[in-house]
Amino acid sequence: MAVKREGPSHRQRQALATKEQIAAAGRKLFAERGYVATAITAIAEEADIPVPTIYSAFGNKAAILKGITRQAIAQLDVSRQHEQAREDTDPVRGLRRAAGLQREQFEAMYDVIAVTLEAVRTDAEIAEDLSRIMASRERAFRRHIEAIAEHLAPGTTVDDGVDVYLTLVLPEIYRSLVLERGWSPDRYEAWLADNFVHQLLGAAQAAPAAAGIENP
Amino acid sequence: MAVKREGPSHRQRQALATKEQIAAAGRKLFAERGYVATAITAIAEEADIPVPTIYSAFGNKAAILKGITRQAIAQLDVSRQHEQAREDTDPVRGLRRAAGLQREQFEAMYDVIAVTLEAVRTDAEIAEDLSRIMASRERAFRRHIEAIAEHLAPGTTVDDGVDVYLTLVLPEIYRSLVLERGWSPDRYEAWLADNFVHQLLGAAQAAPAAAGIENP
Repeated sequence: MAVKREGPSHRQRQALATKEQIAAAGRKLFAERGYVATAITAIAEEADIPVPTIYSAFGNKAAILKGITRQAIAQLDVSRQHEQAREDTDPVRGLRRAAGLQREQFEAMYDVIAVTLEAVRTDAEIAEDLSRIMASRERAFRRHIEAIAEHLAPGTTVDDGVDVYLTLVLPEIYRSLVLERGWSPDRYEAWLADNFVHQLLGAAQAAPAAAGIENP
Repeated sequence: MAVKREGPSHRQRQALATKEQIAAAGRKLFAERGYVATAITAIAEEADIPVPTIYSAFGNKAAILKGITRQAIAQLDVSRQHEQAREDTDPVRGLRRAAGLQREQFEAMYDVIAVTLEAVRTDAEIAEDLSRIMASRERAFRRHIEAIAEHLAPGTTVDDGVDVYLTLVLPEIYRSLVLERGWSPDRYEAWLADNFVHQLLGAAQAAPAAAGIENP
């Protein structure tokens, strides 16, 4: 008798496809209308999937948003990219890679981040999930700062470095420069990289940032 | 017959005192519970003033928040302080004064700003009022950048400078550094000043900022 263990079954593949369809519809409506204003019934209609199927696939609206977030993070392979930035032997180049990763994340999923920041105000489950994600990001940032500790600017501790890193990558800064002021993602990335280098490693290593991509 | 024009009448003074009492109660409850979750009846109870008096003094909840904001801005004399920072003949000192003004504003009214940012999501009147305030801030920032245009870092236009200025003074940066990461307002002000100088005037004029108040 042949053992049937070669990947997911037809049924599992179907279930996965259904979840992806629901997540895609949810992401679209959340971005358009906001989290609070999007009802499960609207997602059902958008995805052309019956409401009970949505409940059995995800459970509730918070679980749909959490699923969307997890999927977006997984697609970017964030942990591996953090690792590569951290392991770069040149601290300036490592920080520039970290800036590139942030830019990639915002480009790929700023909509999901904005919806999450809206949802935490009213949804305890999302708030808890976001705390977990933020804690894990902070650990990744700290590992990077620890790896370049000997290169930090005089008087800058690892804690100082983490404070500055966490602040420079605020989504509100990306929103301000790229979405409101019309900077290109390239220019945002150069600004962030220059600020990482200047503020963490010291003035000598960085050029002024406001002039944008002309200063790589 | 004596003309009675020596300041406000007893009745006017009473009306003003009532408005101030309502505003103080509103500010307290908005900060504690949020804008949406605070009902006029709760403000009435907190201020110990009848609900109809609140409606006749302000009109609606949005008007109470707008009144609180206007009062906080007026107390800080923001326009005059912007003017003084702009008119400083030394561009570095002028930017440091501007950083001091931002710090003062956040220290005095971060609670009001946070409530306003919550309220704009659901209240069109507050959203419109905030747009007006943001436009007026942007004009003040632009006047400052124009006044120091000849000192801007090579390749930095006035528009670039305004983009950077507006971004560096985001309330989320104050929240992150001071309220979440525990920096003192002094240290935040030094960080902001160093970043104004470095990013707007160029690397040569600024020391690295992460090390905090040791770098004035």
